[in-house]
Amino acid sequence: MAKAQSETGDPFLLTPGPLTTSASVKRAMVHDWGSRDATFVRYNREVLEAIVEVSGGQGTHVAVGMQGSGTFAVEAMLTNFVPRSGKLLLLVNGAYGKRAQRILEIAGRAHVVLETPEDTPPDLARLAAVLEGDRAVTHVFAVHCETTSGIANPVAEIARLVAAGGRRLLVDSMSAFGALPIDAREVRYDALAASSNKCLEGVPGMGFVVCRREALLESRGNATTLVLDLHDQWQAMEKTGQWRFTPPIQVIVALHQAIREYREAGGQPGRLARYSGNCRTLVEGMRKLGFRTLLPDALQAPIIVTFHMPADPRFQFQRFYDGLKDRGYVIYPGKLTVADSFRIGCIGRLDEGHMRGALSAVAEMLAEMGVASGVPALAAA
Amino acid sequence: MAKAQSETGDPFLLTPGPLTTSASVKRAMVHDWGSRDATFVRYNREVLEAIVEVSGGQGTHVAVGMQGSGTFAVEAMLTNFVPRSGKLLLLVNGAYGKRAQRILEIAGRAHVVLETPEDTPPDLARLAAVLEGDRAVTHVFAVHCETTSGIANPVAEIARLVAAGGRRLLVDSMSAFGALPIDAREVRYDALAASSNKCLEGVPGMGFVVCRREALLESRGNATTLVLDLHDQWQAMEKTGQWRFTPPIQVIVALHQAIREYREAGGQPGRLARYSGNCRTLVEGMRKLGFRTLLPDALQAPIIVTFHMPADPRFQFQRFYDGLKDRGYVIYPGKLTVADSFRIGCIGRLDEGHMRGALSAVAEMLAEMGVASGVPALAAA
Repeated sequence: MAKAQSETGDPFLLTPGPLTTSASVKRAMVHDWGSRDATFVRYNREVLEAIVEVSGGQGTHVAVGMQGSGTFAVEAMLTNFVPRSGKLLLLVNGAYGKRAQRILEIAGRAHVVLETPEDTPPDLARLAAVLEGDRAVTHVFAVHCETTSGIANPVAEIARLVAAGGRRLLVDSMSAFGALPIDAREVRYDALAASSNKCLEGVPGMGFVVCRREALLESRGNATTLVLDLHDQWQAMEKTGQWRFTPPIQVIVALHQAIREYREAGGQPGRLARYSGNCRTLVEGMRKLGFRTLLPDALQAPIIVTFHMPADPRFQFQRFYDGLKDRGYVIYPGKLTVADSFRIGCIGRLDEGHMRGALSAVAEMLAEMGVASGVPALAAA
Repeated sequence: MAKAQSETGDPFLLTPGPLTTSASVKRAMVHDWGSRDATFVRYNREVLEAIVEVSGGQGTHVAVGMQGSGTFAVEAMLTNFVPRSGKLLLLVNGAYGKRAQRILEIAGRAHVVLETPEDTPPDLARLAAVLEGDRAVTHVFAVHCETTSGIANPVAEIARLVAAGGRRLLVDSMSAFGALPIDAREVRYDALAASSNKCLEGVPGMGFVVCRREALLESRGNATTLVLDLHDQWQAMEKTGQWRFTPPIQVIVALHQAIREYREAGGQPGRLARYSGNCRTLVEGMRKLGFRTLLPDALQAPIIVTFHMPADPRFQFQRFYDGLKDRGYVIYPGKLTVADSFRIGCIGRLDEGHMRGALSAVAEMLAEMGVASGVPALAAA
């Protein structure tokens, strides 16, 4: 049994993030900076500018950082952009849509939910009908790639319907931003939330919200907390170049390095190409071994793939998981309610070689458990 | 001009945090972990247990981590522990007390402010009188060390008055926890907020709240946001050993290493002794150079020291600051409203040698600017 490991001696994370980062991204953290340090202040500005550039929103959009995690950015986005008098239509087909719903419930904001099963995209006809029928709805929320299943939701089409209906769109693009295309010049939204530790390949500790400048200005006074106030966070950064409250300095410096490597590797098209290659290799290899994906290829985002748990009673997930980890590959449990499943991620500092290594480890584990591979029956969950 | 630098080539941060950390703390971050990794899960548990141990609250208190920064922990504490029907009395003598007040205003929670000047401790007689006279007050908020000035507020006496009045205490011990004594067996509080990047000498990115278990249980349902819900954060960690939302993994692993080094160096008494030595060396040396502290020694916490700006017109703060930075020592601007000042911190991975080095750099800068040193007149701001 060969054990694969990264340059820093770690297993490879085939997970939806936190994920495998480059050694240089991690090494960028081995320094102390004061929060007013001129170099650090410049790094902040460059990181936020780069995020706007990735979004395609130069001149129209701004990026606001948010300490914490992606969910902090999503809650900040929802509670800042939906005013107390507003009403949000949530498109839900997984755990992250439901999380947004929970945020709205706690915030006591009016909302309506359009839910589809986890393996099914939002129903655009119903969306259009609700926008037509419920004039109280002011905003629509969509998840770009719902990592619960790995489904790519049709944000561009959703955006067109929302704009046609004269409403405003808020996007959770957490696991997609930087890899799946969503160009602010073509896809109209008021705000889009994502984080440091997904397709930009930084470490976790910071979320951010790309905001249409005009909409952010209008959001002033909507915040219900000090720390999640995006308008205030933005204003302070504009005026002083500094964060209102202590930033996660090392996380930001790592993201600065990650963005440098992102650009060197061809930006969004480069990242999409690598992840798509990873996903193709993974799905083809797993299918050859008898596994079945939850989603048809047309709905699959090259971010994370959900596989049905094999029906063969000799397949034990915990043993499979541990055996892969012993071989240097960390996969992810399932989060589905519709089927018994597990997930394997395609993102992070991984290439086709890593995916082939993971596939060999999967084959070894199937052999070790006595599960016949390549037998379609085994995958008929 | 000699340039001092840390083992990782950085200037020394004589600031209230983010501060100078050990090289081993920073190097602990050069790894990838999945958020469900068994070692990482154990580190989390050990970090939270260690925080309870430092608080003296074993068996009665629990520690709840909060992604973000210290202010995220303070806002979580205030909005979770003061119920909508409650009223908070805030003891304010600096920017951090005012920040808590702002949090209450945004949250729309009833509150009353007892303010004293930045160089003056809270008025305990007035506190007792308000507790006696205003029966609506349910909670009292105090800042342990107010880093605006560096003053040590008398938390133990405040706690006695609050307990005698049958009220509940919430403490912002951000820059003090781990160094200044505040033992939960002697000082009764419902909750105390602090962060990773102060006296525990980790990197920034995580706050935490030490909670009296019973009070935390009672706080259930008080939260007004998902991400800042301490009860929910605690319950999830208790049940699964995992964070509800992506944690700042590298920050937590660095804190785990920092806590190991904290214990090896004698825990709270060891840290207090080192910081007290740093503070003594700094204050004595600066006084010899003609500087005057804002606070009398009896009120000074060994965390950060505020110095009056010299009256000599040849003293230019920006030049002084830049010259010290060029010599490897980063100091901190003042934040006072009562006087023109600057600050020098005593915390972080610094000892007497560093303080002496900083003093030499200060003497050099005075000479360079042509400011006579050791002249009392110069300090009569």
